[in-house]
Amino acid sequence: MLTPQTIDRTVALALEEDAPWGDITSQALLPADATARAQLVARVPGVLSGAEVFAAAFRLTDPSVSVDLHAADGERFESGAVLATVAGPAQSLLTAERVALNFAQRMSGIATLTARYVAEVAHTRARIVDTRKTTPGLRAFERHAVRCGGGFNHRFSLSDAVMAKDNHLAVLTAGATGDALTAALRAGIARLPHTMHVEVEVDRLEQIEPVLAAGAHTVMLDNFALADLRRGVELIGGRAIAEASGGVDLDSVRAIAESGVDVISVGALTHSATALDLGLDVVVGA
Amino acid sequence: MLTPQTIDRTVALALEEDAPWGDITSQALLPADATARAQLVARVPGVLSGAEVFAAAFRLTDPSVSVDLHAADGERFESGAVLATVAGPAQSLLTAERVALNFAQRMSGIATLTARYVAEVAHTRARIVDTRKTTPGLRAFERHAVRCGGGFNHRFSLSDAVMAKDNHLAVLTAGATGDALTAALRAGIARLPHTMHVEVEVDRLEQIEPVLAAGAHTVMLDNFALADLRRGVELIGGRAIAEASGGVDLDSVRAIAESGVDVISVGALTHSATALDLGLDVVVGA
Amino acid sequence: MLTPQTIDRTVALALEEDAPWGDITSQALLPADATARAQLVARVPGVLSGAEVFAAAFRLTDPSVSVDLHAADGERFESGAVLATVAGPAQSLLTAERVALNFAQRMSGIATLTARYVAEVAHTRARIVDTRKTTPGLRAFERHAVRCGGGFNHRFSLSDAVMAKDNHLAVLTAGATGDALTAALRAGIARLPHTMHVEVEVDRLEQIEPVLAAGAHTVMLDNFALADLRRGVELIGGRAIAEASGGVDLDSVRAIAESGVDVISVGALTHSATALDLGLDVVVGA
Amino acid sequence: MLTPQTIDRTVALALEEDAPWGDITSQALLPADATARAQLVARVPGVLSGAEVFAAAFRLTDPSVSVDLHAADGERFESGAVLATVAGPAQSLLTAERVALNFAQRMSGIATLTARYVAEVAHTRARIVDTRKTTPGLRAFERHAVRCGGGFNHRFSLSDAVMAKDNHLAVLTAGATGDALTAALRAGIARLPHTMHVEVEVDRLEQIEPVLAAGAHTVMLDNFALADLRRGVELIGGRAIAEASGGVDLDSVRAIAESGVDVISVGALTHSATALDLGLDVVVGA
Amino acid sequence: MLTPQTIDRTVALALEEDAPWGDITSQALLPADATARAQLVARVPGVLSGAEVFAAAFRLTDPSVSVDLHAADGERFESGAVLATVAGPAQSLLTAERVALNFAQRMSGIATLTARYVAEVAHTRARIVDTRKTTPGLRAFERHAVRCGGGFNHRFSLSDAVMAKDNHLAVLTAGATGDALTAALRAGIARLPHTMHVEVEVDRLEQIEPVLAAGAHTVMLDNFALADLRRGVELIGGRAIAEASGGVDLDSVRAIAESGVDVISVGALTHSATALDLGLDVVVGA
Amino acid sequence: MLTPQTIDRTVALALEEDAPWGDITSQALLPADATARAQLVARVPGVLSGAEVFAAAFRLTDPSVSVDLHAADGERFESGAVLATVAGPAQSLLTAERVALNFAQRMSGIATLTARYVAEVAHTRARIVDTRKTTPGLRAFERHAVRCGGGFNHRFSLSDAVMAKDNHLAVLTAGATGDALTAALRAGIARLPHTMHVEVEVDRLEQIEPVLAAGAHTVMLDNFALADLRRGVELIGGRAIAEASGGVDLDSVRAIAESGVDVISVGALTHSATALDLGLDVVVGA
Repeated sequence: MLTPQTIDRTVALALEEDAPWGDITSQALLPADATARAQLVARVPGVLSGAEVFAAAFRLTDPSVSVDLHAADGERFESGAVLATVAGPAQSLLTAERVALNFAQRMSGIATLTARYVAEVAHTRARIVDTRKTTPGLRAFERHAVRCGGGFNHRFSLSDAVMAKDNHLAVLTAGATGDALTAALRAGIARLPHTMHVEVEVDRLEQIEPVLAAGAHTVMLDNFALADLRRGVELIGGRAIAEASGGVDLDSVRAIAESGVDVISVGALTHSATALDLGLDVVVGA
Repeated sequence: MLTPQTIDRTVALALEEDAPWGDITSQALLPADATARAQLVARVPGVLSGAEVFAAAFRLTDPSVSVDLHAADGERFESGAVLATVAGPAQSLLTAERVALNFAQRMSGIATLTARYVAEVAHTRARIVDTRKTTPGLRAFERHAVRCGGGFNHRFSLSDAVMAKDNHLAVLTAGATGDALTAALRAGIARLPHTMHVEVEVDRLEQIEPVLAAGAHTVMLDNFALADLRRGVELIGGRAIAEASGGVDLDSVRAIAESGVDVISVGALTHSATALDLGLDVVVGA
Repeated sequence: MLTPQTIDRTVALALEEDAPWGDITSQALLPADATARAQLVARVPGVLSGAEVFAAAFRLTDPSVSVDLHAADGERFESGAVLATVAGPAQSLLTAERVALNFAQRMSGIATLTARYVAEVAHTRARIVDTRKTTPGLRAFERHAVRCGGGFNHRFSLSDAVMAKDNHLAVLTAGATGDALTAALRAGIARLPHTMHVEVEVDRLEQIEPVLAAGAHTVMLDNFALADLRRGVELIGGRAIAEASGGVDLDSVRAIAESGVDVISVGALTHSATALDLGLDVVVGA
Repeated sequence: MLTPQTIDRTVALALEEDAPWGDITSQALLPADATARAQLVARVPGVLSGAEVFAAAFRLTDPSVSVDLHAADGERFESGAVLATVAGPAQSLLTAERVALNFAQRMSGIATLTARYVAEVAHTRARIVDTRKTTPGLRAFERHAVRCGGGFNHRFSLSDAVMAKDNHLAVLTAGATGDALTAALRAGIARLPHTMHVEVEVDRLEQIEPVLAAGAHTVMLDNFALADLRRGVELIGGRAIAEASGGVDLDSVRAIAESGVDVISVGALTHSATALDLGLDVVVGA
Repeated sequence: MLTPQTIDRTVALALEEDAPWGDITSQALLPADATARAQLVARVPGVLSGAEVFAAAFRLTDPSVSVDLHAADGERFESGAVLATVAGPAQSLLTAERVALNFAQRMSGIATLTARYVAEVAHTRARIVDTRKTTPGLRAFERHAVRCGGGFNHRFSLSDAVMAKDNHLAVLTAGATGDALTAALRAGIARLPHTMHVEVEVDRLEQIEPVLAAGAHTVMLDNFALADLRRGVELIGGRAIAEASGGVDLDSVRAIAESGVDVISVGALTHSATALDLGLDVVVGA
Repeated sequence: MLTPQTIDRTVALALEEDAPWGDITSQALLPADATARAQLVARVPGVLSGAEVFAAAFRLTDPSVSVDLHAADGERFESGAVLATVAGPAQSLLTAERVALNFAQRMSGIATLTARYVAEVAHTRARIVDTRKTTPGLRAFERHAVRCGGGFNHRFSLSDAVMAKDNHLAVLTAGATGDALTAALRAGIARLPHTMHVEVEVDRLEQIEPVLAAGAHTVMLDNFALADLRRGVELIGGRAIAEASGGVDLDSVRAIAESGVDVISVGALTHSATALDLGLDVVVGA
């Protein structure tokens, strides 16, 4: 969830980063009483994310700027669509413009990419989820963008769910599987709050049964070939959530989803999305 | 410049974001005295950026972790190269891993993309420079990454150089050019500190002379066709720096550079770079 | 989990609160080169919590102070036990003393009270867990103290697990139960990350089946009479975790545990624990 | 004094602690446009403290929530009293509820306990005062609560008044009393700002005269037997404020007050107060 | 530029510094409902700076205080002039008074001193500029004050323009001049962003030509005798900005300006300005 | 008291202000491995203050810089004295230089001015004290500087002592004096902590007796003519501290002190001190 408090704090830092001692150009060149109107226009089709963040950049720069949002987060738009209108002192509009766009372009880029993944798997039971491969400092924004694109979120951080990966298992059991793995996992799980979801990553089929026996709520099938993935889903048999991970791209995601997994986690949603081309068209004196 | 203070402050926030109340998995599953060793390995060729930031993620998580960097920022590497080795408590390594990688992957992605642009124009006088289209909160990191890739930086923010864009000129002169434009710009420039660099964006050739007459230090030729770009460079005639901007990509940059401009600003360096595939291979008990 | 970063940040704020412009008394009265040694002594028996926090108060006041901990968090001690020794400049010891004690006394008070609850239910399957009724700003410290006393933690915050309480259900279904409740809950749960644990509070037996049907992982039986509690546990029948809550005190907890519930949440662990009597005995010139 | 700035800063941190990335339950289960009304109701009699803090928790969560306070800090109330009404979006009410209650319960618990001490000594000249044994980070709140209960405050911190305790005297004079003590104290006092109040702790009667001779404004009689306390008050004879301290509880405070002391400092007011039972009764759709 | 964000952040810190736990005097002595009106009155003639900062001190203390500014920053006033009127709760006015005055007096002191320097050189081409010899934490405020007095700003910080001073040149070239100096400087400048202004300090005439050859935009003539200063200006011949620095005071500045330099930097504007005598005259009950 | 925590926090902010994204000049022009040595040299005689702050500027910029202090705060020095030596990477020395000097010059300026006032009154009982007319954000530094010059401090802030000024009395009693004044003051004082020092400002002789009767600890005689000042001291007769204030300068302070007052508060110590001329002489390659 992207709270108003998180938006305001992060946008304020971004504005400070972009103008630590003001916008010299606007101050030197523009009359303080000049006003302007500007439109946020889509140069390409896409899915909107970050409308409130875009608005916050103007509001925090100058409370006298008005922002009208013409589309809501999650809405699909065509090239040329007018997504928002801002109006107020010209100095303020031009000072906030770049930060407002940097957020909206990045977030809408993620939402739009996510929507493509989601469309690929719409005929299956699989949901597309994000990962912790997010931009430092912007996780809440990028997770929100994934939801705008129709995706779902994975755990927020290392603090709110357990995910035992190959390296944890290696330290825990030195590679052992079977009962030893079950016992070791079970001991660790017994120390956790009862509200803690436990996901365990496996990289071969024989780990699945011991992991289920230990009480895992989700089994992550990491980098499984398609045939193994299908077999893994069968082995799990509804006793836990089946998650596929690793090497997922727009070419492979459909087949992975058709394996029957419940969840597909895709790092690319956040680590490889690029900015969506949105522009701010300013009308002077309006 | 990316100062140690900026690295530490930003990495600390990222670690807090990723583990506000600790790494539950490592705490629950790993013995506190288990140690491990891990290597930062390149899965693809590229240009390194963020080595010190990668190190800081481990150092700030646990000062007892040792980090040896085997390559320096700006170095080119092949797939499979071992770029760094970290060693220490297994809990600490696994807690810091994701944040360390998120920085290094993003920064190296930018450096690697920048290097491709730089290679395209190496036979010309043009330098490749970044823009303010950076990730909110990470500008100093991304500008550093651009330099690692052989690029140069543009102004840091709205506060340290003047850039009068089309919207400023529209407010300033309501579209007038010629002497009116010169006079208006000159009046604004006269209010500036003498150390302030003044760049003015023009979108047609007839604006160049008035802008030079006003004393601009750089003329930005925005979205000029190649023929106009060459003509613009001639008109400027060395009286100011000639910068090309707009619609620059890896396909077009070479021809733009061959127009004779001094500087080519490329938003894509930061807004469209994707994470470079670097991994952390953990060796348990090492 | 109580991270070193959280300890340092919170203790630094407490030191600033207690001496915004220094310890006037020590500065005025004590020679700067006077040294002292002091012992943290238990005036009553109890369970230790906060040893590292106690140490941090001295370390952050003056890195030249040495702190030796003679007992670890979670250890039980008798009246008169010496739990730690600190040594260094007398000014620094006296400046940090109060803050160090305020943390250790409060945390050990919680640990000691928790241990009493835990002892009452040791013969049952029930675990004692905390609630969100913690001191503002000190949640991580108080949850740690609960664990030191042998208790377990509940969710950390509103962000890391779902708990649907009576008020949520009232808004959600206007009091409806049966299929309407199941459907409403299921729709909400479908929007959640797959890693999100879902707990639902019920206040009468007929809500249990619809809540289980919706997929709740924990059913909280709120303020149930003992007979109903036993009946509720039977109805749940292992399909979800059974948690008792409401009106739990040291007199009632044993019988509640014997009803067969898995979890008993006790607000009193944190909202009604009092400071444990620990003192700092200073030996001058030592 | 509890300033609006301190309230807002501390409550904002508490809200962040309790919902770092939002209230998942309310977001998932409640319609964004559902409204509710809720009452702060006393489950037991007591003395109110923290009404403005309670209100701030709602206001900072969502400015559109309205809060009407029906009682002011310091007011005594019966069980069942309605102390405040809040109304607004149901999501916002449920998000802020716990933090609002955590403050109000703790502060009212302190006020109520203080009022009991104050009642015990109402027939004497003694005032009940707090100590520095407060919750880290909440000193201003807890001191305010003490005043609400009819108590008075002692010094705020180590920075705003001098209190020379046994340990200071031990370092200062190695146990000497008489003229040596007077001289040592006087030298220290001479270095202080003229606005600095000087309190000196004594643990036997013969220290009183030298301490007065040095110019102490308050003499703290620490852990004196009742007979000695009376004798101490006589010896002081109005030349300084007489403060009793140590081992004060609800059983002993009356007799201590009747010894004639001016001030009785009671650590228990803050270190051993427990939460007062206040609840928030929500009326959906109101 | 002094942004609203910088004003609010800095004034809030100053208010916190001056009343960490409130204004005890006003709270104890003044009725909460007493109102007052006060005027900011000039006790001496001068130039105003800091009107908005003065207002912010009251606004941030209590939003219900109204502030009417009767003069704008940069305005010249006579002794006795009423510069602003504030009205509201008496407690709030008296709480904010000192911080409001501390800012206004200091800033107006700088503006007034600057205006004296500016007046001395008004008949020449020289502009008076400030330096980095500002009060730590208040640079934006003091630079603003310099502009209010008719002066100009130099670079803001070490980050926004290059100034190579004697020590840099000594490290760079070990004292060499001529072509070696040119080459060394040129190599450094080639690494800079194209928007970076380069100023080089020289202390003898023969350094001027090599520095110009390297491409310096400003040549700072440091501590030159008047005759050398004139000669330096001739040598520069308009190829760069000529700045005089060192030993500038109100007695010497006129002759320095008459040497023909473009810029005179004066550390005294900020390091030796004293507070201007402004007072707040309170009318009770108004 | 100037704590290490306050020094570090404030110096870090000053360094950030002066180099938000690094020292471009040193980075561009100086080899990273060049070292240097520099001396802090007095250009004029004075009293040192801020040695530890000077050192902190270098230490926080680069922990590898060594700082040797050759004089301690409060020491008197002649022109030409070498007060400290710093050595380390040339880049780091030049980056920290200006901030280090800005603190040391300002603080030593205050100490030196204070020493002049103190010398004027050395033959009397009067102590010279500071006021709240300090630089926003630097109060602890400036109070420390006053002590270095032999002066004493007044209250730190509005929170740690009561000072009832003319405006408070006007609101409190509408100008009444005599018993009404005594009663009003006494009622306010009765609400204060017993550790709170109470100072009351009077502007005519007849207020003294009522103020003493109310229990004031200090009577401030504001802007009294010398004869009245002497009469005021007699009237007070040792029953309270007598403080003179208003219109104190180096010409008048001696006679004021000879009136017999205990304390003279001098705003000029901080609001009108100018920077003392200290320089940093760099020796390259040392």
